[in-house]
Amino acid sequence: MHEKDEQSPVQEDIRTLAPPGSEGDAVAVGFENAHPADGADLLEDLSLADQLSVLESLDTSDAAEFVAEMEKHDRAVLMRALSPDLAADILEEMSPDDAADVLEDLDTAHQQALLQRVEAEEAQEIESLLTFDSDTAGGVMNTEVTVLEQNLTVDQAIALIRRAAEESEIPYYAYVVDEQEHLVGVVSLRNLMLARPGKPLREMLENQQLITAAFDTDKEEVAHLLSHYNFLALPVVDREGRLLGVVTHDDVIDIIHEEASEDMLGMVGAGQNETVDTPWLRSVTLRLPWLVINVANSAVAAWVVHMFEGTIAQMAILAALMPIVANQAGNSGQQSLAVMIRQLAMETWDRRRAWTAVLREAKIGLLNGLMVGLLVLCGVFILTHHASLAGVMALALGLDMMVGNVSGAMIPVVLRELGRDPAQASSIFLTTITDSTGFFLFLGLAHLLLL
Amino acid sequence: MHEKDEQSPVQEDIRTLAPPGSEGDAVAVGFENAHPADGADLLEDLSLADQLSVLESLDTSDAAEFVAEMEKHDRAVLMRALSPDLAADILEEMSPDDAADVLEDLDTAHQQALLQRVEAEEAQEIESLLTFDSDTAGGVMNTEVTVLEQNLTVDQAIALIRRAAEESEIPYYAYVVDEQEHLVGVVSLRNLMLARPGKPLREMLENQQLITAAFDTDKEEVAHLLSHYNFLALPVVDREGRLLGVVTHDDVIDIIHEEASEDMLGMVGAGQNETVDTPWLRSVTLRLPWLVINVANSAVAAWVVHMFEGTIAQMAILAALMPIVANQAGNSGQQSLAVMIRQLAMETWDRRRAWTAVLREAKIGLLNGLMVGLLVLCGVFILTHHASLAGVMALALGLDMMVGNVSGAMIPVVLRELGRDPAQASSIFLTTITDSTGFFLFLGLAHLLLL
Repeated sequence: MHEKDEQSPVQEDIRTLAPPGSEGDAVAVGFENAHPADGADLLEDLSLADQLSVLESLDTSDAAEFVAEMEKHDRAVLMRALSPDLAADILEEMSPDDAADVLEDLDTAHQQALLQRVEAEEAQEIESLLTFDSDTAGGVMNTEVTVLEQNLTVDQAIALIRRAAEESEIPYYAYVVDEQEHLVGVVSLRNLMLARPGKPLREMLENQQLITAAFDTDKEEVAHLLSHYNFLALPVVDREGRLLGVVTHDDVIDIIHEEASEDMLGMVGAGQNETVDTPWLRSVTLRLPWLVINVANSAVAAWVVHMFEGTIAQMAILAALMPIVANQAGNSGQQSLAVMIRQLAMETWDRRRAWTAVLREAKIGLLNGLMVGLLVLCGVFILTHHASLAGVMALALGLDMMVGNVSGAMIPVVLRELGRDPAQASSIFLTTITDSTGFFLFLGLAHLLLL
Repeated sequence: MHEKDEQSPVQEDIRTLAPPGSEGDAVAVGFENAHPADGADLLEDLSLADQLSVLESLDTSDAAEFVAEMEKHDRAVLMRALSPDLAADILEEMSPDDAADVLEDLDTAHQQALLQRVEAEEAQEIESLLTFDSDTAGGVMNTEVTVLEQNLTVDQAIALIRRAAEESEIPYYAYVVDEQEHLVGVVSLRNLMLARPGKPLREMLENQQLITAAFDTDKEEVAHLLSHYNFLALPVVDREGRLLGVVTHDDVIDIIHEEASEDMLGMVGAGQNETVDTPWLRSVTLRLPWLVINVANSAVAAWVVHMFEGTIAQMAILAALMPIVANQAGNSGQQSLAVMIRQLAMETWDRRRAWTAVLREAKIGLLNGLMVGLLVLCGVFILTHHASLAGVMALALGLDMMVGNVSGAMIPVVLRELGRDPAQASSIFLTTITDSTGFFLFLGLAHLLLL
């Protein structure tokens, strides 16, 4: 992520525009001096035709920076529309990992057509990056790292870094390797600036606790490691401990952003990585199993109602009111479910604390149940003038809301205790409980007290 | 966030333990050489008594690093139990912003008791930080920044930074101010290392596009700015443009983590910032309004059923089956709701793309509706041997699932078009639609075809 990882807020470059009158000149206004992220936003707001003429009028290295920062979807559409030669030139200007990210969204034939036009060495590096699973450290890592041989001295290292900085980012960390390219340590620019100039790097690494990720480590695990230690970058190594690249803080922000919304999808039984770009048939296969389980679960509630069919036949208004009970308790329970899932996602697991939170939800459920119960008591009485019906409804509703809150809080905890994902399909389990309990309480009380 | 913002993965410090035999010696094992984040984890796993004796046995600066990295809840419990003198010593060793974060969770009397024991200048800085709203840039900023006067030359600046680095972090950015302390620019270490030594800093700032946050900018806006530009830190200024501090990349990771799960809470009408530490009565007031709206909404569905009470009285099994229709469509709709909310949270708004996604959900709803409809057709026929009942049920279910998916996709889009939060209470609006439609379709078709 060389262009993406623009670690300086300083905009000094004066971007070269095509000479006046050239194609695209009219639409390229605003791209001069734009930060790559802003240039990408500007591009995304243009029609495809305008995007193409802007890119043709821009300097290729600027075009590469803007394209690297675009959103995946818009970028894929644009890359498909670009002339293969210009597309290849743009890829060549990107860091290999950005180029691999761009190519990942194109089909294999298109990938090959473009890679053939890219300079051989660069093409090979991009291809090797494409082989990593995009959900692993290898798939998100940046391959442009500063590598120092362990026998260099501090002043030699500084001179090397200074030279390298002239044509790329400043490396906040430099990675120290042995003769066989095994990663043996990390030095920060700070360490180097403060060390005695003649000291060999090797001696700086004593007592160092080196934290690395394997190339096939899950990217979320990498994100957790980096944010746990507040690192700027985490080195990625192969099975033999040789340095392959680094995952940087900005990649981690993207990973964490993605991950946190996965719980919301998991809770309702959608695929945790689904986006609007997931092929729709794939979404069907991801969601259908949970919908089928949901049918089975709601059959339990149906069976409860079935037991009271006689009661309903005598008093059909019960059928009209019972969904209110179930719906209300389900919603209240989902509130505590969401708070609990978030809790489990944000903190390390603490059993005592989790059960204290369940107790807290019980209190909330009790009070909310009481309030909504009173509201429903008045509402039903005003509409039906049937005091005992209103009482039964309010009682069933209040109790079921409390059951909903306690279940909503307990389901993620129980799933966690069982070693499962606390969010997965939790909403489906919850509504099974609130529906069945609600119908049983309401119809059961009605049967006992109203007939 | 000085101690927290440990930007080097290098562990060179050899931590001093209390002499053997001293109190806490037995439990302090493992804390030597521990990274602050790991030390904090180790502490959290101990009983409160053991935490206290470990902290007493550790060097105060190590204790401060560990405490700063602990989770808010555990840390507040520990701080309340510590002797005021030790607590104050630990606070003094922290960066002022970490100390303010720690104090924020204590009551005012306790805050004052500890601040009185802290050295006056430090205490004043912590107190001024405590005045910022914790949801704003001022509330999350770090006040330890490297400030350079604009008339310094590059070599003077490097010498200053080098001196400062000896006792704190290396500053990746240094902030350049004019004579009145107004922020005029940012230079990175890279810029400095590559510039001509005699050049005044002022001249390095030409053409610079300075991006800052006001002290009262919402912290989520700050997080978006920083991650948009892939900065390591964003300067925070007062109304007059004077530098107050910086928000760093590691704070932003925490903010983004928190924010992303807010949608899940918003969707079901819980408070977006609720945690298990929110006072339970506060949670009641946050959630109750949405529950009341939910009652009103589910009254719509009840009214639909009420219209068909005659039908139900004749055929009570309808009452047992109708919740399956509503529940299934509600769940299916929540799946598309979650995917859509995530989409809107992750990408910049694109109307055409949003409506394409609605179409995609319609297709998913149609196919899933067909499949689950067939399943229910078989299930109901086997259980009741009533072919037309099974047919009516399957038809209503399939149609309602499609309605659910389309509504689930449209609600966030419509909320967004109205300028509202796409997640807020969306699940409540959704179930109103799926319940009412489901009951109307099922009971209506049953009335027409079965009686």
